[in-house]
Amino acid sequence: MALLSLTLLDSGVQLSMLCAVIGLIFAFVLIAIVARSPAGNERMRQISGAVQEGAKAYLNRQVVTISVIAVIIFILLFIFKDPPTAIGFVVGAFCSLSAGFIGMRIAVIANVRTTQAATSSSRRALRIAFNGGAVTGLLVVGLALLSVSIFYTAANKMVGHDMAIRSLVGLALGASLISVFARLGGGIYTKAADVGADLVGKIEQGFEEDDPRNPATIADNVGDNVGDCAGMAADVFETYAVSLIGAILVGALTLVGNSAAIIYPFVLGGISVLGAICGVLFVNVANGKPAAVLMGGVLTSAIISAILFWPATHYLFPTGLTIAGATRTPTQLYFASLIGLVMTAVVVAITNYYTSMRYAPVQKIARASETGHATNIIAGLAVGQHATALPVGFIGIAILLSFHFAGLYGIAIAVMSMLSMAGIIISLDSFGPITDNAGGIAVMSNLPKEVRAVTDQLDAVGNTMKAVTKGYAIASAGLAALVLFGSYVEELKAHVTRNGEPFVFQFSLTEPKVIIGLFLGGLLPFIFTAFSMDAVGKAAGAVVREVRRQLKAKPGILTGQDTPEYGTCVDIVTKAALREMIVPALLPLVFVVAVAIIKPLGPVVLGGLLVGTIVTGLFVAIAMTSGGGAWDNAKKFIEEGNLGGKGSFAHAASVTGDTVGDPYKDTAGPAINPMIKVVNIVAILIIPIFF
Amino acid sequence: MALLSLTLLDSGVQLSMLCAVIGLIFAFVLIAIVARSPAGNERMRQISGAVQEGAKAYLNRQVVTISVIAVIIFILLFIFKDPPTAIGFVVGAFCSLSAGFIGMRIAVIANVRTTQAATSSSRRALRIAFNGGAVTGLLVVGLALLSVSIFYTAANKMVGHDMAIRSLVGLALGASLISVFARLGGGIYTKAADVGADLVGKIEQGFEEDDPRNPATIADNVGDNVGDCAGMAADVFETYAVSLIGAILVGALTLVGNSAAIIYPFVLGGISVLGAICGVLFVNVANGKPAAVLMGGVLTSAIISAILFWPATHYLFPTGLTIAGATRTPTQLYFASLIGLVMTAVVVAITNYYTSMRYAPVQKIARASETGHATNIIAGLAVGQHATALPVGFIGIAILLSFHFAGLYGIAIAVMSMLSMAGIIISLDSFGPITDNAGGIAVMSNLPKEVRAVTDQLDAVGNTMKAVTKGYAIASAGLAALVLFGSYVEELKAHVTRNGEPFVFQFSLTEPKVIIGLFLGGLLPFIFTAFSMDAVGKAAGAVVREVRRQLKAKPGILTGQDTPEYGTCVDIVTKAALREMIVPALLPLVFVVAVAIIKPLGPVVLGGLLVGTIVTGLFVAIAMTSGGGAWDNAKKFIEEGNLGGKGSFAHAASVTGDTVGDPYKDTAGPAINPMIKVVNIVAILIIPIFF
Repeated sequence: MALLSLTLLDSGVQLSMLCAVIGLIFAFVLIAIVARSPAGNERMRQISGAVQEGAKAYLNRQVVTISVIAVIIFILLFIFKDPPTAIGFVVGAFCSLSAGFIGMRIAVIANVRTTQAATSSSRRALRIAFNGGAVTGLLVVGLALLSVSIFYTAANKMVGHDMAIRSLVGLALGASLISVFARLGGGIYTKAADVGADLVGKIEQGFEEDDPRNPATIADNVGDNVGDCAGMAADVFETYAVSLIGAILVGALTLVGNSAAIIYPFVLGGISVLGAICGVLFVNVANGKPAAVLMGGVLTSAIISAILFWPATHYLFPTGLTIAGATRTPTQLYFASLIGLVMTAVVVAITNYYTSMRYAPVQKIARASETGHATNIIAGLAVGQHATALPVGFIGIAILLSFHFAGLYGIAIAVMSMLSMAGIIISLDSFGPITDNAGGIAVMSNLPKEVRAVTDQLDAVGNTMKAVTKGYAIASAGLAALVLFGSYVEELKAHVTRNGEPFVFQFSLTEPKVIIGLFLGGLLPFIFTAFSMDAVGKAAGAVVREVRRQLKAKPGILTGQDTPEYGTCVDIVTKAALREMIVPALLPLVFVVAVAIIKPLGPVVLGGLLVGTIVTGLFVAIAMTSGGGAWDNAKKFIEEGNLGGKGSFAHAASVTGDTVGDPYKDTAGPAINPMIKVVNIVAILIIPIFF
Repeated sequence: MALLSLTLLDSGVQLSMLCAVIGLIFAFVLIAIVARSPAGNERMRQISGAVQEGAKAYLNRQVVTISVIAVIIFILLFIFKDPPTAIGFVVGAFCSLSAGFIGMRIAVIANVRTTQAATSSSRRALRIAFNGGAVTGLLVVGLALLSVSIFYTAANKMVGHDMAIRSLVGLALGASLISVFARLGGGIYTKAADVGADLVGKIEQGFEEDDPRNPATIADNVGDNVGDCAGMAADVFETYAVSLIGAILVGALTLVGNSAAIIYPFVLGGISVLGAICGVLFVNVANGKPAAVLMGGVLTSAIISAILFWPATHYLFPTGLTIAGATRTPTQLYFASLIGLVMTAVVVAITNYYTSMRYAPVQKIARASETGHATNIIAGLAVGQHATALPVGFIGIAILLSFHFAGLYGIAIAVMSMLSMAGIIISLDSFGPITDNAGGIAVMSNLPKEVRAVTDQLDAVGNTMKAVTKGYAIASAGLAALVLFGSYVEELKAHVTRNGEPFVFQFSLTEPKVIIGLFLGGLLPFIFTAFSMDAVGKAAGAVVREVRRQLKAKPGILTGQDTPEYGTCVDIVTKAALREMIVPALLPLVFVVAVAIIKPLGPVVLGGLLVGTIVTGLFVAIAMTSGGGAWDNAKKFIEEGNLGGKGSFAHAASVTGDTVGDPYKDTAGPAINPMIKVVNIVAILIIPIFF
């Protein structure tokens, strides 16, 4: 690897580290600002403290469970692969878990302060919730950039460039696998509690959301933190790190010896941290409707990044880049990077249309609620499926264009530039659960109804933002996974020989093994989400029975004379989440290894499997996250007083839809995102072991 | 084509015609037996007459609508393709429509007689309903075999062998496209009426099923006939004819000049008619539980066919068959044919497990109903998704084995032998709606409750049978579509040249265009079913509003003093079905032609699209039909007195699940089956036009 210009490599990676550090410093300034704002009265801090304690307790137990599995995988990697990959795995796993803790810590600081701010103004509440989210966004992105660049630099020095590149795959596996666990564990926890609380509380007893008489209400609020905040942060860390590593891998495998091609993804990531900071500043100074201000922040961030990408690309590739014999101009590479930014905007706009209560789809679900539970469900399922069309169409266009500009590397660049927007996008995502929790604290602290009205209004925006960022995450995951599939094919080429000659596998659709692979891969998202939904359904059922039992045993709870035992519900969902996350989380791992081991299957079927998982995974994930978001806001639409408002027949039906949407959008759907990548990463890792 | 042994060809096709005629004669004997049994009292015949009239009136209007579209396509084919293909299209379309009429006619003869038989014994009722179904099964299979063989023989004589083979694709298109319309039109009709009737009737008013006070009840019963009977019959005609044509096509394209390879599918089909007759006889003489007797009939039919396939295969291929240079022994070909039979048994057993109330999945949904509407829905969705795993796994094994035995031709043979079981399988499918209608007639004629109990018990078996046959239809459709995709690739080879040389396209997964095709194709089932569900939801909503209006305007309806206006509900669903079927039915056509026309896409993207549609189509269809069947029987399980029985909270939740399942299992899910094939057939047809 003497061909690599190590100076350029070092300076590029150092630049990205510098940007990451700037992002971290900015995040610490923000957190200081948030922490300085008032944390409310005694009662509020008490409740927030209880929620925080529950969240910490759960995350600690989750870490223990996951660590056992991580240690086993570490040992397997150490024995069957190599120590650097095994160490990469540990680094990835550790950072992913840390990202989860960061997400949770920040949220519990911000939520009570958002409640307090909501007592004075909607604008202040928006800023605190958003800044809390922005801290998470910048910390997670900074962590991802730093961990990959430090690990890469260190491995490069210690075990050489080739091995450094390969051990990055270990880091990616650590990040993805842990994030599947975090998404599932947190997702099952939060939705079992939420569904359980709603089914008895809202439907049977007519409680408001977060009514302190509901024995499941603390579990519900803890869930927001461990699922929507911690799970999401781990997930985004994974998405970012894996996309970065995927781009590096493609650069290293297809453009051997070209160090600029390896640095480019780092540089795009670094630059965009600066863009994200500008976006955050915009939201803090702009005035207007919450949704418009937030979108303005995203736009600012994208424009700054787009401007800075231009000189960076020309500096790194002054004479362009030779890919498969053809020279690509710097402008072509720049265009590939723009595609990622445009895709972000496109996916955000489309998901916004399907999940915001201002547009036809959500209102259609709301109207369908007037004729009953079943028509609400049918309409919601249909909206989710419709919502897949445009994103998938645009993903197709993005693939076509970015491949046209720079081959597989072009797709990798587009993915990386798409992910480079993660800093600002997660700020939006975290915003939702923070306001949700803020509302919970308001109700439980008996604050005036107006406070809840403020947080409710922000919460509806938050619902759309959450759906939007999930659409973004899954679209980028689909593209990232395609890049990983490309790496799988390249790795196969590099490793597999027949009769001493390098052997090139064909993955033609006319080969039955490819079709079988597509079927097996296509199956994964279906059964993965089936297991996840089962888990939520089962655990929620247990919560319902417990709540019914408490209300029956202590009728004084209903009148406020008795206090419910919140602890038993927390205990039920904790145990259920930890138990039920294991099977679905290990499913993709087992599937891939089984296909590799079973003789008549092997590398060609595995290749089909990787693509099959991406194809159906994309549809299932988009349908679930958009459908779920739409159901949630259809309920909010009715609660705003439309179609009969709260307490009407339509409202009851819309609560059913919202409840079905809960595991869709917060457990099963988003977990597909890391799952798709686990499948692809494991396949890359096991090539030298089995083939 | 002088190489073709015309004598062998003729005699083989004649044998299959002979078997078809025997099947038809047997069917006429059966119908005479059914028609001779007593048709009940005046009131019963009146109601049955009203339902029959409504069904005929709707089918006539549906024929008019579809004919307009068929004429346009006929003209397009006549101009841009060739007259034989256009004529084939008309033949296919006409036979598909006729099959629908046959299904409906037989059902209305059998249903009232089943009701009457149920007044004396469950066993007699089972036999009449089953024999009614068997008539449909044998007539549809006979029609398919005869129409394809007569058309093929005639075309062979008039325009030569090559053109005859190609014009068969026209016949396949006619059959498939019309069957998409019939499935959708009938499916929207029946489920809009059913859902509408249930939502107000059962949930709001506490009516029993088929309560004559419900203004939507006649529409509901008409729907059973136009959807489950007519739609299903058209669908199975299509599945059978297209599988036969697909097998002939693969034989003709990959084994040029080998007439035995073309006759073999005809012979398998013909022989199995004899097997089906034996199966029908078995059910008529056997004693035991309904489900066991019916399964015994299937088994008998399969065993007889398996025995007869052996000499037929050895007679046709005394020295085996040379495929791609390698000789396959007659025994290998025989094994390929056995795979189809085994697959039938496997799919039937698996779907039975997921949808029968005797097993865990249905009971899980029932238990989930105890905690509410939402948990019922979550459980049902999960069961549907779980139900995809085993069938898809076995389809993979079937592909691997049949390809191992005889390449693509082996897969074609396996499909054809699977479809050869259609005669007996449809007997089971038709059985469901006939008993369902029989129950309706019993309630509306004020017959004693015991009669309804008999038909209800048979109806539960019928639900499982319907789900089972849908699983069978979709699994065979997936395989048939793969065969068609193989034909697409072969046709491309035969037609496309570059610089005067034949050009072979590669469909490698490493080619972005293939991936884009997989995405676009994968999208089709999602939006196709979304449109279908929307249609049902919309129309059902209109029915609900109409029923509410009537009950408010004439309160005497509730007390039985006023008669509801049944006609307005019939009118609403008729118009809705005819209007709403157009867009989804034309969607696959438009998609394929658009991909062919748009320049940067073209033949490679189209190839990916065909496979993508098969992959996601299979999952979506199985999940919907199995999930829907399971929901339906979960409700029946509770209605049998479990978990609180009728009127309990769990029962209300289970009705919601059943209602959501209605469009899943009877509209959107089964329509995917012909849709997948339309996509593949259109692609084959347009090759010479666009590429």
